[in-house]
Amino acid sequence: MIVPVAIVLSLSFSAYLTWDVMRKTRGDQKMQEVASFIQEGANAFIERQYRTIAVLAVIVSLILGVVVANFGGDLTTDNTTVSALGIAWRTSVAFLIGAGCSAIAGIVGLTIAVKSNVRTAAAAKHSISDAMMVALRGGAITGFLVVGLSLLGIYLLFVMFGGLSKPALAPYLIVGYGFGGSFVALFALLGGGIYTKAADVGADLVGKIEAKIPEDDPRNAAVIADLVGDNVGDCAGRGADLFESTAAENIGSMILGVSLFLVDPDRNVAWIILPLIVRSCGIIASIVGLLSVRASDQDGSKVQQSLDRGFWVTAVLSLIGLGLCTTYLFNSIWFFAAGAIGIATTVAFVYITQYYTAGEWRPVKEIAEASKTGSATAIISGIAVAFENTAAPVVVLAASIGTSYFCGLQGVQEIGLQLESDFIGGIFGTAIATMGMLMSAAYILAMDTFGPITDNAGGIAEFSESGKEVRERTDKLDSVGNTTKALTKGYAVGSAALTALILLSAFIDKADLPGGVVNLAKVEVFVGALLGGMIAYLFSAMAIRAVSVTSAAIIEEVRRQFKDNPEIMEGTVRPDYGRTVDIAAGSALRHMIAPGLLPVVAPIIVGLILGAEASAAFLMSATISGVVLALVMNNGGGAWDNAKKYIESGALKNSDGSTVERGSDAHAASVVGDTVGDPWKDTAGPSLNVLVKVLSTITLVLTPLFL
Amino acid sequence: MIVPVAIVLSLSFSAYLTWDVMRKTRGDQKMQEVASFIQEGANAFIERQYRTIAVLAVIVSLILGVVVANFGGDLTTDNTTVSALGIAWRTSVAFLIGAGCSAIAGIVGLTIAVKSNVRTAAAAKHSISDAMMVALRGGAITGFLVVGLSLLGIYLLFVMFGGLSKPALAPYLIVGYGFGGSFVALFALLGGGIYTKAADVGADLVGKIEAKIPEDDPRNAAVIADLVGDNVGDCAGRGADLFESTAAENIGSMILGVSLFLVDPDRNVAWIILPLIVRSCGIIASIVGLLSVRASDQDGSKVQQSLDRGFWVTAVLSLIGLGLCTTYLFNSIWFFAAGAIGIATTVAFVYITQYYTAGEWRPVKEIAEASKTGSATAIISGIAVAFENTAAPVVVLAASIGTSYFCGLQGVQEIGLQLESDFIGGIFGTAIATMGMLMSAAYILAMDTFGPITDNAGGIAEFSESGKEVRERTDKLDSVGNTTKALTKGYAVGSAALTALILLSAFIDKADLPGGVVNLAKVEVFVGALLGGMIAYLFSAMAIRAVSVTSAAIIEEVRRQFKDNPEIMEGTVRPDYGRTVDIAAGSALRHMIAPGLLPVVAPIIVGLILGAEASAAFLMSATISGVVLALVMNNGGGAWDNAKKYIESGALKNSDGSTVERGSDAHAASVVGDTVGDPWKDTAGPSLNVLVKVLSTITLVLTPLFL
Repeated sequence: MIVPVAIVLSLSFSAYLTWDVMRKTRGDQKMQEVASFIQEGANAFIERQYRTIAVLAVIVSLILGVVVANFGGDLTTDNTTVSALGIAWRTSVAFLIGAGCSAIAGIVGLTIAVKSNVRTAAAAKHSISDAMMVALRGGAITGFLVVGLSLLGIYLLFVMFGGLSKPALAPYLIVGYGFGGSFVALFALLGGGIYTKAADVGADLVGKIEAKIPEDDPRNAAVIADLVGDNVGDCAGRGADLFESTAAENIGSMILGVSLFLVDPDRNVAWIILPLIVRSCGIIASIVGLLSVRASDQDGSKVQQSLDRGFWVTAVLSLIGLGLCTTYLFNSIWFFAAGAIGIATTVAFVYITQYYTAGEWRPVKEIAEASKTGSATAIISGIAVAFENTAAPVVVLAASIGTSYFCGLQGVQEIGLQLESDFIGGIFGTAIATMGMLMSAAYILAMDTFGPITDNAGGIAEFSESGKEVRERTDKLDSVGNTTKALTKGYAVGSAALTALILLSAFIDKADLPGGVVNLAKVEVFVGALLGGMIAYLFSAMAIRAVSVTSAAIIEEVRRQFKDNPEIMEGTVRPDYGRTVDIAAGSALRHMIAPGLLPVVAPIIVGLILGAEASAAFLMSATISGVVLALVMNNGGGAWDNAKKYIESGALKNSDGSTVERGSDAHAASVVGDTVGDPWKDTAGPSLNVLVKVLSTITLVLTPLFL
Repeated sequence: MIVPVAIVLSLSFSAYLTWDVMRKTRGDQKMQEVASFIQEGANAFIERQYRTIAVLAVIVSLILGVVVANFGGDLTTDNTTVSALGIAWRTSVAFLIGAGCSAIAGIVGLTIAVKSNVRTAAAAKHSISDAMMVALRGGAITGFLVVGLSLLGIYLLFVMFGGLSKPALAPYLIVGYGFGGSFVALFALLGGGIYTKAADVGADLVGKIEAKIPEDDPRNAAVIADLVGDNVGDCAGRGADLFESTAAENIGSMILGVSLFLVDPDRNVAWIILPLIVRSCGIIASIVGLLSVRASDQDGSKVQQSLDRGFWVTAVLSLIGLGLCTTYLFNSIWFFAAGAIGIATTVAFVYITQYYTAGEWRPVKEIAEASKTGSATAIISGIAVAFENTAAPVVVLAASIGTSYFCGLQGVQEIGLQLESDFIGGIFGTAIATMGMLMSAAYILAMDTFGPITDNAGGIAEFSESGKEVRERTDKLDSVGNTTKALTKGYAVGSAALTALILLSAFIDKADLPGGVVNLAKVEVFVGALLGGMIAYLFSAMAIRAVSVTSAAIIEEVRRQFKDNPEIMEGTVRPDYGRTVDIAAGSALRHMIAPGLLPVVAPIIVGLILGAEASAAFLMSATISGVVLALVMNNGGGAWDNAKKYIESGALKNSDGSTVERGSDAHAASVVGDTVGDPWKDTAGPSLNVLVKVLSTITLVLTPLFL
């Protein structure tokens, strides 16, 4: 009952916010003009992108259906049998619905974000707190839409494929939904990520460095592409990522729940539907959290504090909701403890990320210091920070997996289930921790999208020459937005890691290997693990290379325009923004195909040649190396970015006590670091979160083939 | 019988080469003067370094003895029992002998290399082929010494601890030897690697960039530290690495052999001593290979060809030797096939490394192209290449492990052994492949040490103002040396990966887990794997940071000297080289301790808390991620280095067809790439090879504690 209520609440809250944001003023004419440029560019890109994705998705769904129908075999659970054909069409349908929902979330989120930017810029003309509210609420539209849609899809499919009358069957039939969601998310992130960073790097290199004009200067032909990129990359991408995490977590947990449900003498259906209920509580907590954010200050010093307050309200309410759910449904304190561990993990990840990427602590200061001796030392020092920052999150993950497993095991024993092996019982505790972590997803996503909206609002203010005061206000918001973006990236990696573990466990459960054993002391298992350890690198190499190639194409185009038409530089003629946008879009879309298909094809090859046990090892190894590499890239990139900002804020001093200025060699070195970090933190890093889930969901869908 | 013969041959060949090189002229007075500077600096460093290592080694050996004696338990194999105390003292003694041999190999190798440099420079006054022969033979002294000593130590311990009368017992008692060797190798590589790159980066940044004086200019106070660094880093380090690979491979294979010996009705002792015999054949093949290198050309165009010929002679003779051994001892073609796979893997690794790091192919050209748009794009492009280059070697490794496993299994079945599980039989095939790969170790090491010797000879020629002609000759040799260094690095990673797998298998075999199973579907095993996936990053972060900190100290000192004494810049007064050398040495030694102890302490913590199964997963995951990261760093660094050289050779063209000059912006960008790659390819990367073996050997030594 609570589930449909939460879905309706979530979607209508999103609609209310849309109405609330849309009634705000769109600003003056100049602002509207640049906003319309951005909107056009974004729409053009998104249309082409999703058309490509749609073609790919339809092909994959057909292949999926044919393969599962012919090689999948029947499925029998709880005395009900579904034929291979029955599984096949349901999987294909679920895949398409997942893909569709993910696409809708991405498209609507982007459309809204573009409209929120200009309204944020307009609001910044009056006051910083108004601007903050517009940006946050604009972000929240996406947040609640994404989480609501994800839950809606799963709920509908669950009801369609059996519902509470056949609760043990439905979860197996909706795995296609998770795969569809992650498939689209991966391409959305890759396409958007390549586009945004290629445009950013291209615009900066040719503008700031070659032509010596400021950032977001209208004379730069790549500047609109850059602003479009901020939207298609950051807004559409993260939404797709979290859509996918929430969907995959629900499905993985439900499959684990089925095994427990089947051995429960009471046949408590809560084992299966717990993930949906916890998510619903999380949505309600997030709504209250968001509404608790009040704009109060005039100078912008309390923006971060206001956002943090909302986060803490959400976290505390989530904890209470979790306590109610677990007590009411299972009457076990252990499950509550497991969920609380998940919420604590969220907090730990947020603070560790902050330590490694914010200017107040050693890592960023060290990079800024190293910039004094040039770009080489800035890069070396940043790489050291990036590598080092993997240690604490991995230890936190290890601890939270271990303790939540323990809680799960205690809970299952307290309830009195007789399990063949401890594994499923314990890992159910980890699944609850993951649910706990993802309860705040909608709020986190609102905070995250706040970043690119304020960033874009700044660009619009600059581009439309709205005056120094406005730009200062948006700059302040932008700097808070950078922090929230970094924090939510940590959250995304942490929840992706736990989700992937749940999916991996669901796979091991579903594959029903002899004795439930994945034995490393078998050569094919070791070989699978070895190959898995490389896949994240190959994927990242492809993504980074795509950024290089695309930015080179943009640079060439801008140079050509400057050369062919000298009046552009004088500012009397507008450059041809459209052509640059086109080139960026075409190249990004071409180059997203290969890395996007890699995680779809690789597990199939490994599974078919080496078998299910090796697949599990491949998944495990790919997940671990993918998560670690994502930490390296996300936080390494964030640290470089903030080292640059640290210098720009005037906090770095020379040995004689004078301030290191903007435009100094040290500043230039820090800009190089920032540029190197761009494709790390905004292209390859975030895509890796989805990569690990695509690998798991496709393996889960095709399990029967590998046996 | 062949084993002692090969040991004597190897060591006396090394002595003969020493005599041969030492009788060459030491050059003119200026050359001798700079050589004596280098020698002093190197001796001072090596003395301090090995004193520190000796203290650490004695402490570890004592702790090891006490721990094994008290918690180790007795060992019973083949109806013979050894008490815990008996194991303890033997392990401690073996550890100290391994540590001692590794240290001797490092110290003697370094001393000889320093003496060979100046003689190479002197020979370059007359002809390039003379210089080549001196450099190669100087390198070969180390090569044959290292491999001979490694075999000698194992042979002596094997005889001491039972020999052929108790062949099933001795291998378990000498695992300490491998740990001792890898312990010292790790510190030697770390200390030397930090020193060499800190000096290199420091000298370049303060000399070439700040003071605008050429490389190796006598006015730079860091230049002697730089030249010393080339010796202590490259010569001493790689020797220790391969000492360790050969020793660890022998021990791991012997332990696996014991299990097969015990089930063999014929009690064929060849199962156990095969690794020693194959190594002996490899030594003889390498001697012939080295003697077949003839200096013939005058213009230096055939240097690479001459070295390649020697390699191929060694490879073919190794193959023949392997065929003779396996046929005579086992009469099975399958074991020969497994060894041949190992030799083929060597060739594949060498060529893949060449593709990714030499100027003739896409990757390096792409980085050079990217340098045109600045250092940021040069770095981005280099990182993409570094990540991409993991794919092919990993696939080759997977294929060679899979096929050699198959061969091993067929061989064991053909011979008719009844095995409880296939694993040990198959992995014995992979062990034979590893033996095959390491047969050419002495020759490879000679080719490798050729690199730093010629590099240093060039430095001596420049520093002693010996004229352009001499410098040109040494430059040609140096460029070949860079290629051979890169190739041998690929070889070192590949053999380290296989060796670590053998050690891991030996651990699984020795731990005798229930059913021989390491079950991934257990939470502690997954957590172990998760932690293992992070350790290589943390280690690399520490190593890279140590380079940053040390080079910063060097830069400060050189700046201080320039400032305090303006006559240095005029060239009328010599700077104080000694102080810079001292500072570099002190800082490098302080900063090697923490990363060096990490791989000793981490597996103990994991093993004690999570148990033996999790240890196996930790090892596996750490090995895979360590090998992949080593590939990233070694070849990424090599690619940047050669992109710079590609530009310096004038091969890169502007869009208008003109040549990109030295000193251009593109060249400067490529120098930044090279500098970033320095700590990758010469500090962290090579140390990772040893890291994976230290993790395995300590786990193997302490196995009883984790059960």
